[in-house]
Amino acid sequence: MSELFVGMDIGGTKLAAAVGTDGGKLVGEASTRTPSRARPQEVLESLLELANLALRKAGIIWKEVKGAGISFGGPVDFRRGLTIACHHLPGWSKVPLAKVMKNRLRLPTVMDNDANAAALGEARFGAGQGAEDLFYITVSSGIGGGLILGRKVYRGASSLAGEIGHTIFRPEGPRCTCGKNGCLEAFASGWSILRQAKEALARGREQSMLRAVPEKELDARAVAEAAGKGDALAKAVIAEAADALGQGVAAIVNILNLPLVVVGGGVTKAGEVFFFPLREAVKKYAMPEAGEIASVVAAKLGDHAPLLGAIALAAEPPG
Amino acid sequence: MSELFVGMDIGGTKLAAAVGTDGGKLVGEASTRTPSRARPQEVLESLLELANLALRKAGIIWKEVKGAGISFGGPVDFRRGLTIACHHLPGWSKVPLAKVMKNRLRLPTVMDNDANAAALGEARFGAGQGAEDLFYITVSSGIGGGLILGRKVYRGASSLAGEIGHTIFRPEGPRCTCGKNGCLEAFASGWSILRQAKEALARGREQSMLRAVPEKELDARAVAEAAGKGDALAKAVIAEAADALGQGVAAIVNILNLPLVVVGGGVTKAGEVFFFPLREAVKKYAMPEAGEIASVVAAKLGDHAPLLGAIALAAEPPG
Repeated sequence: MSELFVGMDIGGTKLAAAVGTDGGKLVGEASTRTPSRARPQEVLESLLELANLALRKAGIIWKEVKGAGISFGGPVDFRRGLTIACHHLPGWSKVPLAKVMKNRLRLPTVMDNDANAAALGEARFGAGQGAEDLFYITVSSGIGGGLILGRKVYRGASSLAGEIGHTIFRPEGPRCTCGKNGCLEAFASGWSILRQAKEALARGREQSMLRAVPEKELDARAVAEAAGKGDALAKAVIAEAADALGQGVAAIVNILNLPLVVVGGGVTKAGEVFFFPLREAVKKYAMPEAGEIASVVAAKLGDHAPLLGAIALAAEPPG
Repeated sequence: MSELFVGMDIGGTKLAAAVGTDGGKLVGEASTRTPSRARPQEVLESLLELANLALRKAGIIWKEVKGAGISFGGPVDFRRGLTIACHHLPGWSKVPLAKVMKNRLRLPTVMDNDANAAALGEARFGAGQGAEDLFYITVSSGIGGGLILGRKVYRGASSLAGEIGHTIFRPEGPRCTCGKNGCLEAFASGWSILRQAKEALARGREQSMLRAVPEKELDARAVAEAAGKGDALAKAVIAEAADALGQGVAAIVNILNLPLVVVGGGVTKAGEVFFFPLREAVKKYAMPEAGEIASVVAAKLGDHAPLLGAIALAAEPPG
């Protein structure tokens, strides 16, 4: 008999809740746009409504639910159940969200950041099913990472483990949003891909389908999609980003001798145009003995990874 | 009651064996120069002689010994007990050293590479005593690393975890001995420090106590010692190497959110002249939240780290 858990996801563009089994089957789901500048109280009430709605859709009552998990879009203090800051919303310093939710639901409730949740989701139910150890990287606007060791989330001393995005691999490189130079994000994230595409478009008169995209619709996903369709300018930009990402992945592969790296996020929509140079770069930068045993694969759960990870987190025994 | 174990160390300059307790107290020890180009059979016989000698010195008979551990100066296949290659000696491809030693001693025998052994030694008995998780780096001629997670050696998929030396942090950097460009070793190892010191000496007419060192005695340790005595040229070379090393340490600190990094090896003889710029670099390159909780400390066990680690390894329950 499988048990039921509720997963909730606080993201930059949407809030979502779902009820699902410990085997990763979603039986009811609901979501809404994240209200811009939503405060914690407002987000909490929305999540509760969404969870109620998801349960109603599934024909399930709260008594049947064993626990809840929250995927939070920003760093958290896992052990204390506190948010540290939200990537997308104001007012999220030190909010005891796990505890408040636990009191409202009268259910065991755990919370982790979205990259860790997504890593666990992919490890349990997605591209990493069956793997003991893996690194998960998500390349969307920023770059997030989560580390699974021995089938559990490895969080490190203060819940920050997996932070590859602000790790510096090219110290002579461009300025990052964090104020340092040459972070992986400054080469391989959505925002840096967009910047590089805009620079390439401005630089030359090279033909590109991106020239037809209205400026407010031009984002990294559009660049990735154009690259996937064979646009030469977009392909070059994506290949450069993939090369830098591959250097970061190679470092992880060397240091942890990992057999599996799962890559998700909007930029992977480019498909092989992204994955081919990424895998070539991992081979180029990693030690041969470590690189040759490491598979670099696409994430499978898409936008559902944090939600399924939140359910997996709720279903995990504590400790 | 403490139990007794034998540790053995196959290094580039010496072979050593010791008998010690599971609490890290050495009660007998013997060592000899590593015969140049020694073959596996010869090394094995020397280690057995050294172990017998160490036991005799301690007034202990083999029946009192519960197991043996071997620290090997090169990569090993831990699970199968095979050496892969020796950094210093020929003929060490796929030697089943742990098994052969086990048959000769009729005792449980485990083997690991010297960086992992030293990491475990420092974690149990040295600068990392009491720590759950730490990274150990040794900077001597090359750069080795070992990772302790949950008080155990973390080896990864094929016993290569911890390989920070051939991780690329500055891809535009100089060629490394491994054939790639910009590995940490090409900036921060003994051989690269020596190269940089020689280049600095050749470049200018700056005063330096290194100019008085006979060429065949000029090595990284001499540079480290001159730096420790305040020699400006040597200090600048060591500070450059420490900056690069700090970038590598910062990557580890970000990715694993580690509270402790232990640094050993000949180059640390420079003392604060090395550790001050190293700690500054970790602060400069790491994410502030991860960097501020990470201590970077000097190893405590010196040349005994692999031997004590081999004893700790022998004393660990398998699996």
